[in-house]
Amino acid sequence: MNNATAQILTQTVKELSDVTAYKELFHKHTEGTLIPSGTVLAEIVELARAILFPGYYGRSTVNTDTLTYHIGVNVERLYCLLAQQIQAGLSFTECDCDGEVSEVKTFNEYRICAQNKAEQFIAKLPEIRKVLATDVIAAYNGDPAAKNYGEIVSCYPVIKALMNYRIAHELLLLEVPLIPRMLTEMAHSETGIDIHPGATIGKYFTIDHGTGVVIGETTIIGDNVKLYQGVTLGAKSFPCDENGNPIKGIPRHPILEDDVIVYSNASILGRITIGKGATIGGNIWVTQDVPAGTFISQKR
Amino acid sequence: MNNATAQILTQTVKELSDVTAYKELFHKHTEGTLIPSGTVLAEIVELARAILFPGYYGRSTVNTDTLTYHIGVNVERLYCLLAQQIQAGLSFTECDCDGEVSEVKTFNEYRICAQNKAEQFIAKLPEIRKVLATDVIAAYNGDPAAKNYGEIVSCYPVIKALMNYRIAHELLLLEVPLIPRMLTEMAHSETGIDIHPGATIGKYFTIDHGTGVVIGETTIIGDNVKLYQGVTLGAKSFPCDENGNPIKGIPRHPILEDDVIVYSNASILGRITIGKGATIGGNIWVTQDVPAGTFISQKR
Amino acid sequence: MNNATAQILTQTVKELSDVTAYKELFHKHTEGTLIPSGTVLAEIVELARAILFPGYYGRSTVNTDTLTYHIGVNVERLYCLLAQQIQAGLSFTECDCDGEVSEVKTFNEYRICAQNKAEQFIAKLPEIRKVLATDVIAAYNGDPAAKNYGEIVSCYPVIKALMNYRIAHELLLLEVPLIPRMLTEMAHSETGIDIHPGATIGKYFTIDHGTGVVIGETTIIGDNVKLYQGVTLGAKSFPCDENGNPIKGIPRHPILEDDVIVYSNASILGRITIGKGATIGGNIWVTQDVPAGTFISQKR
Amino acid sequence: MNNATAQILTQTVKELSDVTAYKELFHKHTEGTLIPSGTVLAEIVELARAILFPGYYGRSTVNTDTLTYHIGVNVERLYCLLAQQIQAGLSFTECDCDGEVSEVKTFNEYRICAQNKAEQFIAKLPEIRKVLATDVIAAYNGDPAAKNYGEIVSCYPVIKALMNYRIAHELLLLEVPLIPRMLTEMAHSETGIDIHPGATIGKYFTIDHGTGVVIGETTIIGDNVKLYQGVTLGAKSFPCDENGNPIKGIPRHPILEDDVIVYSNASILGRITIGKGATIGGNIWVTQDVPAGTFISQKR
Amino acid sequence: MNNATAQILTQTVKELSDVTAYKELFHKHTEGTLIPSGTVLAEIVELARAILFPGYYGRSTVNTDTLTYHIGVNVERLYCLLAQQIQAGLSFTECDCDGEVSEVKTFNEYRICAQNKAEQFIAKLPEIRKVLATDVIAAYNGDPAAKNYGEIVSCYPVIKALMNYRIAHELLLLEVPLIPRMLTEMAHSETGIDIHPGATIGKYFTIDHGTGVVIGETTIIGDNVKLYQGVTLGAKSFPCDENGNPIKGIPRHPILEDDVIVYSNASILGRITIGKGATIGGNIWVTQDVPAGTFISQKR
Amino acid sequence: MNNATAQILTQTVKELSDVTAYKELFHKHTEGTLIPSGTVLAEIVELARAILFPGYYGRSTVNTDTLTYHIGVNVERLYCLLAQQIQAGLSFTECDCDGEVSEVKTFNEYRICAQNKAEQFIAKLPEIRKVLATDVIAAYNGDPAAKNYGEIVSCYPVIKALMNYRIAHELLLLEVPLIPRMLTEMAHSETGIDIHPGATIGKYFTIDHGTGVVIGETTIIGDNVKLYQGVTLGAKSFPCDENGNPIKGIPRHPILEDDVIVYSNASILGRITIGKGATIGGNIWVTQDVPAGTFISQKR
Repeated sequence: MNNATAQILTQTVKELSDVTAYKELFHKHTEGTLIPSGTVLAEIVELARAILFPGYYGRSTVNTDTLTYHIGVNVERLYCLLAQQIQAGLSFTECDCDGEVSEVKTFNEYRICAQNKAEQFIAKLPEIRKVLATDVIAAYNGDPAAKNYGEIVSCYPVIKALMNYRIAHELLLLEVPLIPRMLTEMAHSETGIDIHPGATIGKYFTIDHGTGVVIGETTIIGDNVKLYQGVTLGAKSFPCDENGNPIKGIPRHPILEDDVIVYSNASILGRITIGKGATIGGNIWVTQDVPAGTFISQKR
Repeated sequence: MNNATAQILTQTVKELSDVTAYKELFHKHTEGTLIPSGTVLAEIVELARAILFPGYYGRSTVNTDTLTYHIGVNVERLYCLLAQQIQAGLSFTECDCDGEVSEVKTFNEYRICAQNKAEQFIAKLPEIRKVLATDVIAAYNGDPAAKNYGEIVSCYPVIKALMNYRIAHELLLLEVPLIPRMLTEMAHSETGIDIHPGATIGKYFTIDHGTGVVIGETTIIGDNVKLYQGVTLGAKSFPCDENGNPIKGIPRHPILEDDVIVYSNASILGRITIGKGATIGGNIWVTQDVPAGTFISQKR
Repeated sequence: MNNATAQILTQTVKELSDVTAYKELFHKHTEGTLIPSGTVLAEIVELARAILFPGYYGRSTVNTDTLTYHIGVNVERLYCLLAQQIQAGLSFTECDCDGEVSEVKTFNEYRICAQNKAEQFIAKLPEIRKVLATDVIAAYNGDPAAKNYGEIVSCYPVIKALMNYRIAHELLLLEVPLIPRMLTEMAHSETGIDIHPGATIGKYFTIDHGTGVVIGETTIIGDNVKLYQGVTLGAKSFPCDENGNPIKGIPRHPILEDDVIVYSNASILGRITIGKGATIGGNIWVTQDVPAGTFISQKR
Repeated sequence: MNNATAQILTQTVKELSDVTAYKELFHKHTEGTLIPSGTVLAEIVELARAILFPGYYGRSTVNTDTLTYHIGVNVERLYCLLAQQIQAGLSFTECDCDGEVSEVKTFNEYRICAQNKAEQFIAKLPEIRKVLATDVIAAYNGDPAAKNYGEIVSCYPVIKALMNYRIAHELLLLEVPLIPRMLTEMAHSETGIDIHPGATIGKYFTIDHGTGVVIGETTIIGDNVKLYQGVTLGAKSFPCDENGNPIKGIPRHPILEDDVIVYSNASILGRITIGKGATIGGNIWVTQDVPAGTFISQKR
Repeated sequence: MNNATAQILTQTVKELSDVTAYKELFHKHTEGTLIPSGTVLAEIVELARAILFPGYYGRSTVNTDTLTYHIGVNVERLYCLLAQQIQAGLSFTECDCDGEVSEVKTFNEYRICAQNKAEQFIAKLPEIRKVLATDVIAAYNGDPAAKNYGEIVSCYPVIKALMNYRIAHELLLLEVPLIPRMLTEMAHSETGIDIHPGATIGKYFTIDHGTGVVIGETTIIGDNVKLYQGVTLGAKSFPCDENGNPIKGIPRHPILEDDVIVYSNASILGRITIGKGATIGGNIWVTQDVPAGTFISQKR
Repeated sequence: MNNATAQILTQTVKELSDVTAYKELFHKHTEGTLIPSGTVLAEIVELARAILFPGYYGRSTVNTDTLTYHIGVNVERLYCLLAQQIQAGLSFTECDCDGEVSEVKTFNEYRICAQNKAEQFIAKLPEIRKVLATDVIAAYNGDPAAKNYGEIVSCYPVIKALMNYRIAHELLLLEVPLIPRMLTEMAHSETGIDIHPGATIGKYFTIDHGTGVVIGETTIIGDNVKLYQGVTLGAKSFPCDENGNPIKGIPRHPILEDDVIVYSNASILGRITIGKGATIGGNIWVTQDVPAGTFISQKR
């Protein structure tokens, strides 16, 4: 590197290091606080998957005698990494333990609070697996191309998306900031299925193919619902406050009751209800309630 | 970690290790049998790509004098890893060497059977590359933004999806279980293009952009066909057996004859035939045969 | 490996190493020249992201006192890797320093030329960050589900896609071959958002959810524009030369003026203009100019 | 790389690949047989150390509640890797299961034989740890600079050398070829202490500092013996056969009875006996029996 | 793995997990406390070397303009890792901040105490480098085979041993438990030179070749001293307490005044003084004071 | 990290970055020049070992049919890495291509010069292997504990030391600066055997155990020589110039003629000759010529 180059580099570094340039973007950011790390969260997802479906994910075989050891090691490590990342999330957003922004806490207060949340999450894992098992069955029953449950678990994108979503949703209920959204976006990147961790989704849920599916923050989905690729469960519009900024947290996504089927590329928008057992045809745009048991489709 | 936490962890591990909880999901699962590994399959894909397009993938340059060495090392390693993974797949599904479920075989029988299949696959590689070369040409000719073949090979998603598909399809013809589907789902995750390994696809095939494309299990595609992003070649509906479960393996996806073009987000559903040279407009829903040479589009 | 297997392997290697089989595909390829490496480009993207949004990407915390060190190390390494990869790109395509194909240059000429381009790129980084900061604000303002800027930066796919696009676009303006397209395809794989590096995009740009969005090579987008998932800004058709091959480089994608909104799965095709402040409804197909301030939607 | 270079490289490769050049060196070598791998043996040593002294080696903390999980996972993996490496060792040396050279066995016979040996080794681990614990105590008692047992376990070279030796010795007793010697040479490289796996060493054994210590194949050491750095327990000379080659396997190294101390750089050579409680001074050369309880030293 | 094997494995795991077996060895060990990690200490050594001799160690070039960035990043990371490891060391040995065993402290007290020590250590780095620079000059002047300072810094074992020793010695002065000894044992393994961190060593110190050198805990070495390979500066004997255990911490190793030379394999034992400028010949055993300026050697 | 800590860190970084502090140590150091990297040299050693003894080192099996591929890939990579490292060495020492310090050359001149040297080295590999094969035979014949050639090749320290030495010696003859010494010091660290690359060593050379052996720069060793552990072939004293600095490059180490044996811990010092077939006993100090065929030993 010659002198001219070195000068350009050091000048650029100087401009990029100017903290005032960060002011707007990082105004909540405590000096020196760690931010949840994408790399560590990726390891957390791998561990959780290896715990939920050992053999299919992670390095173990499913051997009755030694399975406990593998699950044990993975659960302990999951607990440690999760506590560490939750602490990073809490410090970064300056939340107190109820998820509310509060007076800044000490390092040690955040540490204990994060460990509590991680511990509560661990205790939910058996329940999470129970629900995911119903999703596997739903995917198998819904796809004539599926050869066996193993194929579903090991490679169907819907299962990967739901593993992340169901984990993220529990963390959201525990008022863990930032991380739930990072987890579902990781699945979004992996599968093309974008489920907001705030959505509520029942048992025996499945999505065929999946690319392009969007499920918004306040969506509520019953049991035994099936979506196809490209389906949007979105907001129609959202009210803004006096500054023209969207008001956060208002219910604005649809409710799908039990046994609903939505075909590919349909868009269901706004806080409407699709009644029990209704079927929505492909490529259509639904912005009003659909009665239970009916079938609506594109006019041709 | 304090005692209370340790107790919650060990209790959770105990619940998660309970084998009866696995019964339904893993009923075919032989104790201690390995399952094909996503990590190893990813290495297999990397090796295969480095063999098919050396220089573009893997670590070598394309040097006439030393190319053989690189291909040789990669082919040998591909053979070993593939034999190992096929063995895992056969044991897991308890298939015999014809892909049928059979009496359980010994470790050694599976080993030899897997080596045979891997060997047969290796011998197909030159043919696979020949077909992929036609796909590269089709992609180049179909995209005014393409600058040269190198750009196509190194970054067009369609080529990545077709490399995996054409490999997976050969493995499926060799009656290798589970792995073909895992390979195409890996490409699905990477490109948003979901091609079932069971589909039959001719030469000079291309897909522009690709995200959201679905090509179902029994689809048949001729030569010189072009799809755009979001196209579905899917099933319309599927007959169920007396238990309400879908009957597996019935032809239910479309046939696209030579020279067909399908524009973005069109859905072609059911065992229908799109005749030679037909063009299907964007965003439409096709459920009936389309005669050769015709153009159909959305009514506006 | 027994003898029969070894024979099949060596025979296959021989066929695959036959250079005449490469002739058509690699006719421009200088012997022994390196091709830009996907692995190194992935590291380049990681470095650039860590420079643009330290703390959110890379290993540092955002500590006022030590931030300079991290940015400095990353900028230096980015310069080195980029110069190396640009050199690979220039040699491979046999471009001269203006991006034109020229007489073959020496190793050393390519080296110096590549260093110049890398240096010019580094000097653009502060400007790139300034524009990306407006994109973060646009994403936050446009999504009621967003909790804070940090969430946007750390996990919204649109930001990942725009980081790669804005970097790639600058490299394209510097007449760097091949690499810009590889960078945007990496983001395409990660986010499902396919932006051609040749497109021109203004400030405060955002895309909600993003999967399936396509923005073509000659697209021009003003300030403060918002797209939803599945939107295509594409070409309608393209003129071919006398050999039936598409003519490269003709403006064939739309112009979106300031303040335009396009809802999900809409397709806007051809060199048409969507006027300032116009709104395009979801799932529709637009092939003609849309006047400023108007709203067009699907007929139901 | 230009043509001249390429030619030199390919010519060199050709010469190096000439199998006749290997004939003398590799005459026992079965085609395509794996050889035990230094890299895998290094992992085996790491696993064994993590099992024997959890917390000090490997990634776990010593937590009563979760310790079992870590040991369980490590024992299972140790078994698998060891069985694989023993198989490589048996095939390479064409031994039968008693360590004798025999008619060539099948892949599967070697596999089962190796698993049996690995299993028997695993069952010895608790006993190995019990003896190593006495070595830790001896090292602590013998060194005024030692602060606590933890310091001994985590960094004293003698413990590293003895972990490898005691493992290697058990494998040798199980008639595992090649691997025992590779394991002790790994410790030799790490610590400068060269103990042949064939030596027999009692409890409460320690070596201070250790660099340069040599303990030969047929050495016998009682309980509670202490050596200092640079001590050689070697052969004086060895009888040769009619071809002038040394006759293998004859007892030719010393016997040290209980409670012997040997100071630094002393050499004790030949099949002599150092009686119970004797002390050998530094820098001397001993080639004859030393009575129990005596002290011999360098004349000054 | 068959059932019999699984049973042997689980039985072995059970025996190995029995905590009572650990009682004697780990009696000071707090449940769940981390122990300093060899892997992290290896990274700490790499960082420290890269800071002390940038270019020779670590990834940077020595570029005046960008050197600060590299040192800055490395210093920050060194601080973090060191604070973490010191905390592990303090907790493990239950020391208070003066190195004395004390009442158990809380996690947070250890954390703050460790950070203080790490900070004080960082501030010593410029001084450490200054002394190491004198050692480089001494090694160069003392070896006719040395071509330039660069050769000394990059590969002479004495410099590697002294880097670790001088770091470890400072940490010992800061009353950091366990880690100093681990650091010098790492250098012992790397170089065959065993320097106890408690030794006091002046400027312009060098050791030629080095293998087998031992420098005991209470040794005091002046300026401009040179040792050759195999030299021992050891204890002659040590007084034991009423239980027959050695009394810890008594001065028992030699004092070497300025300008002393000790030739290969000499042993200098006990709290004796080798006077200024004395020369000790090779292979001899010295247990009494040597007057300044004299030369003593082996009688032949 | 709080403010006080940050201040200490930045102050330390500032002191450490002060280039004037480097002046003495790095006076020959061109700005921004790379220094040969220990990490890359370690890879070079691994590659060379895998080429010289395939199967024993590296990942291949010794399969007649595929061996060429592995050697080919390794030779090509060895060439590339070596050329790169030689270039770093030449630039750093500002040597011209004859090893003499010269006027500073351009980047490109060093590049071409380094490639020439790397190419010449590659062409020597078959000869190097031929000599190493004689060393393997010598080690086998000289050790009754050796079971087969495979054991020698895979784990005897003498072979590891000689692989590095014989490679380093060839590079020294090609006037490559710095790297030869780095290579032999790597083996010194691994084996405790310190052979200067400048020494000249004949065929069928072996060292038993090896720890502590030193072979100086101007040593000359004939064929069929055997050393034991701790042997020094060193300088007795060296003449200094008018400034009191040692004069470099004068012959000052012993000559060992064919068939000499030297027992453990003997020191042979100065430019003396040990005649053909002489035997030197252990632990003695030899500073005068020894006639051919004689045996000298320690008086007791």
